Amino acid sequence: MPSFAPSGVITITTDFGHKGPFVGVMKGVIAGRFPGATVIDVTHDIPAHWPPEAGFWMSRAWRWFPPGSVHVGVVDPGVGTERDILLATLGGHLFIAPDNGLLAPLLPQADSIRRLDPGVLDRLGLPPPSATFHGRDIFAPVAAELAAGRLQPQALGDAVEDWTPGWLDEPACTPGRVAGVIVTIDAFGNLISNIDASLIGDFVRAEVQLAGHRLALSPTYGRVTPGDYLALINSFDVIEVARAEGDAAAGLGTGRGAPLVVVDRGRA
Amino acid sequence: MPSFAPSGVITITTDFGHKGPFVGVMKGVIAGRFPGATVIDVTHDIPAHWPPEAGFWMSRAWRWFPPGSVHVGVVDPGVGTERDILLATLGGHLFIAPDNGLLAPLLPQADSIRRLDPGVLDRLGLPPPSATFHGRDIFAPVAAELAAGRLQPQALGDAVEDWTPGWLDEPACTPGRVAGVIVTIDAFGNLISNIDASLIGDFVRAEVQLAGHRLALSPTYGRVTPGDYLALINSFDVIEVARAEGDAAAGLGTGRGAPLVVVDRGRA
Amino acid sequence: MPSFAPSGVITITTDFGHKGPFVGVMKGVIAGRFPGATVIDVTHDIPAHWPPEAGFWMSRAWRWFPPGSVHVGVVDPGVGTERDILLATLGGHLFIAPDNGLLAPLLPQADSIRRLDPGVLDRLGLPPPSATFHGRDIFAPVAAELAAGRLQPQALGDAVEDWTPGWLDEPACTPGRVAGVIVTIDAFGNLISNIDASLIGDFVRAEVQLAGHRLALSPTYGRVTPGDYLALINSFDVIEVARAEGDAAAGLGTGRGAPLVVVDRGRA
Repeated sequence: MPSFAPSGVITITTDFGHKGPFVGVMKGVIAGRFPGATVIDVTHDIPAHWPPEAGFWMSRAWRWFPPGSVHVGVVDPGVGTERDILLATLGGHLFIAPDNGLLAPLLPQADSIRRLDPGVLDRLGLPPPSATFHGRDIFAPVAAELAAGRLQPQALGDAVEDWTPGWLDEPACTPGRVAGVIVTIDAFGNLISNIDASLIGDFVRAEVQLAGHRLALSPTYGRVTPGDYLALINSFDVIEVARAEGDAAAGLGTGRGAPLVVVDRGRA
Repeated sequence: MPSFAPSGVITITTDFGHKGPFVGVMKGVIAGRFPGATVIDVTHDIPAHWPPEAGFWMSRAWRWFPPGSVHVGVVDPGVGTERDILLATLGGHLFIAPDNGLLAPLLPQADSIRRLDPGVLDRLGLPPPSATFHGRDIFAPVAAELAAGRLQPQALGDAVEDWTPGWLDEPACTPGRVAGVIVTIDAFGNLISNIDASLIGDFVRAEVQLAGHRLALSPTYGRVTPGDYLALINSFDVIEVARAEGDAAAGLGTGRGAPLVVVDRGRA
Repeated sequence: MPSFAPSGVITITTDFGHKGPFVGVMKGVIAGRFPGATVIDVTHDIPAHWPPEAGFWMSRAWRWFPPGSVHVGVVDPGVGTERDILLATLGGHLFIAPDNGLLAPLLPQADSIRRLDPGVLDRLGLPPPSATFHGRDIFAPVAAELAAGRLQPQALGDAVEDWTPGWLDEPACTPGRVAGVIVTIDAFGNLISNIDASLIGDFVRAEVQLAGHRLALSPTYGRVTPGDYLALINSFDVIEVARAEGDAAAGLGTGRGAPLVVVDRGRA
C-alpha cells in the first residue's frame, strides 16, 4: 500500500458555479482546519449534476499538480442519499469524490481505492452533515485533514473492488477506427473528445469525423487559415476539434455528447 | 468590548463579476500590506448594485470561516457620495461594508458596530480614495491591516447605534404562517428564501407556497423523482425550493423577489 | 539594468475563461515549482484571441500589486507558431507575454525588454512544450522560477528593441480634441476607453462624445439621477461612460471598438 505524502495542495472541481458562497465556504472550512493549505480551483463550471465531465478533467489535469495533492470532486446529484464516497490513490496523488461514476476514468489504474467510513466524521469531531452540502460538511474537512498529513487514506475506510461505473462509454476501438464522444467544450469553443492519443498511436493518416465534417489531424492551431476547422491532439492528449481563431462548437452547431470517430486513411 | 483576534483570513463578496481586474487589484493591495493573508472569494456575482444579496450570503456564510476572519462586502451603488462605512464584530468575526443596508441581516446581533473614521485613511498613509473604487482604495487596505492585527476595530471609529436599514422586509410571521421572499438563485436554479428554519420550528406539517405551487417540506434532494419540485431546509438553514436534478427557477418561471409563504397544515 | 527583486506574487491574465482546468493547471505547475507563490487572478474573461484587452488591463492594474510581482499575460492566438515571448521590467515589476501586441501599452516605458531564449526551457528541465498550451508549459514554470528568485530576467534572453505593435491605435490628439476607442466593458456595463486622463489635463470643460451622446465630464457615479448617463475619469485614470445604477453598454447599444471623442468646450 503506497502511503500518501501530502504537498499541502488541495484542488476542487465542482458544478457549483460562481453564484453564491458554496466554493468559498468549502475554502473557509479548509482554512479553519489547515491554514497552510494551498487551495486551487480546477473548475466550478461542470454542467450541473453531470459527474463525467468532472472526472474527465480531473483524470486529465492531476499530473500537473505537485505529488501529494488532494483532488476533491463534488458533482453529486445523489447528495443526501445512501451513495458512498470513494478515496483513491494514484501516482502519489489522492482523489476523493462521490461513488457515482465521477472517478471512473481514474479508478482502473488507481493504486488503492477505499470507501469512506462514515464513522470518520465522528472521529474528526464533525457535526452530522447536512443533507445537501457534503462539499462543505464532508469533503472539505476530510481533504483538509489529509492535506495536513493528520489522516492517512488507509485510516478512512476499507478497500473496495467495485464501484459505480462511469456514465460515458469508453471509446470503441476496432482496427483502424476509434469511436468516442465529445465530453466538453472549452471557453474557446473547442470540442474535446474522450479519445486518448494512444488509441490512434499506430494510425498512419488519421481522419477525424465530427458533425458531418472530415478533418485530417493537424499538429497545432497555428498553421491554418483563420476560420478553418482542424482536428488535433490537444495539450491533455485527447483528440479535439478546433476552429482557428474561432469557435468550433458554434460553427459546427454541435456539442457535448456528439459522436467523434477517428479512422486511419493510411492503412494498406 | 470583545477584541478582535485575527486569523489572517479575509473574505470578499462583491458585485464586480469576473470581467476586468477589480477583484484581482483588491487582492494586490492586500498582498502589498499583508503578504500572509489568506484571501477567499465568497462570490462576485451579486446582482449589480443590489446589496441585500451580499448581506444575505455573508450572514449565512460567515460561520464556516475561521474565527478571526475579516469579511469584506462591497456592493456600493453610493460609492463616491457621502455614505458611511460600517465595521461590525460578531462572534469573533469582523465585517466591513458600506452603510447601505448590506449588513442589515447581521447588525441586530452584532457585538459592536462602528463607523469608519475617514481620518484613518490618512493614518494608514493612503492617498485620497478614488470616487469610484473604494474596494481597492479603502476596503482592501483597511481589511489587510485588520487581518494583520496591526489595527483593532475600536481604533477605526466611534460606535454607532443606527444604520441604513435593509432593503428586504424581514419575513412576516403570524401563527402558523410565515411570509418571506426569494433572495437569490444558485447555479443549479434552486430558489433560496430569507425564511430561517427557526421561524417554522414549531410547525407540525409545513407546506411551502411559491409561484402557484404547494409543496410539502422534504428532508433532502435525493428521495424524489428527477424533475419533481421539492421544498426543503437547505444547508444554510433557510427554506429553498429545488427541482430534483433540474432547475427550479427555469421550470417555475420565477426568481428573485418572488413571495414564498410557509403555512402549517398540521395545526389543530 | 535594474535587477528584479521578487515579492512572490504572480498575477495571471488570460482568455481561458472558467470552463475547464486551464488556469488551475497553470497554478498547479506554479505550486510544484514554488509552493510559496501568491497567485492572483487578474481576469480570465478577456475576449478569446484578443490580446489588446489583456494588455490594457495589465498596464492599468500592475501598480496596485506589490513591487516585485510577476505579471503573466496569456492571450495567444499564435500559440504553436514561431511567435516569440517577451519579458519586460517596469518599475520593479516583471511582465511576460507572447510577442503579439499584448504588452504594447507597457513596452514604451519599460526599463528592459528581452526575448525569451527557448534554450531556457531545457535549462529548467522542462519537456518540449505542447503546441497549444504554453500557459502551462512555458509561462507558468518560467514565472514560478522568476517569482521564486531562482532566475533573473537578464538570464532569460537578449534585449530587444522592436516588437509586435499593439492592435489598437493610440488615441489621436489634436488641440482641444482627443479621439480614442472603447477597449472594454466591465460587469456593470461601464464603457471604458483607452484615453488617459493626462491627455485632457489642460481641458477647461471636457465633453465626451459616444454613440451619438454628448456628456459633460462628471466627478463621480453618485451625484446624478439613477438612469442618467455620465462620463468620468475612472479609478484607473481613463475616460469611462457609465449609467448611474444602470448598464451603459446595454442602454446605449454600443461596445468594444466604438469611437469615443473628448472635446474641450471651454477653450477660448
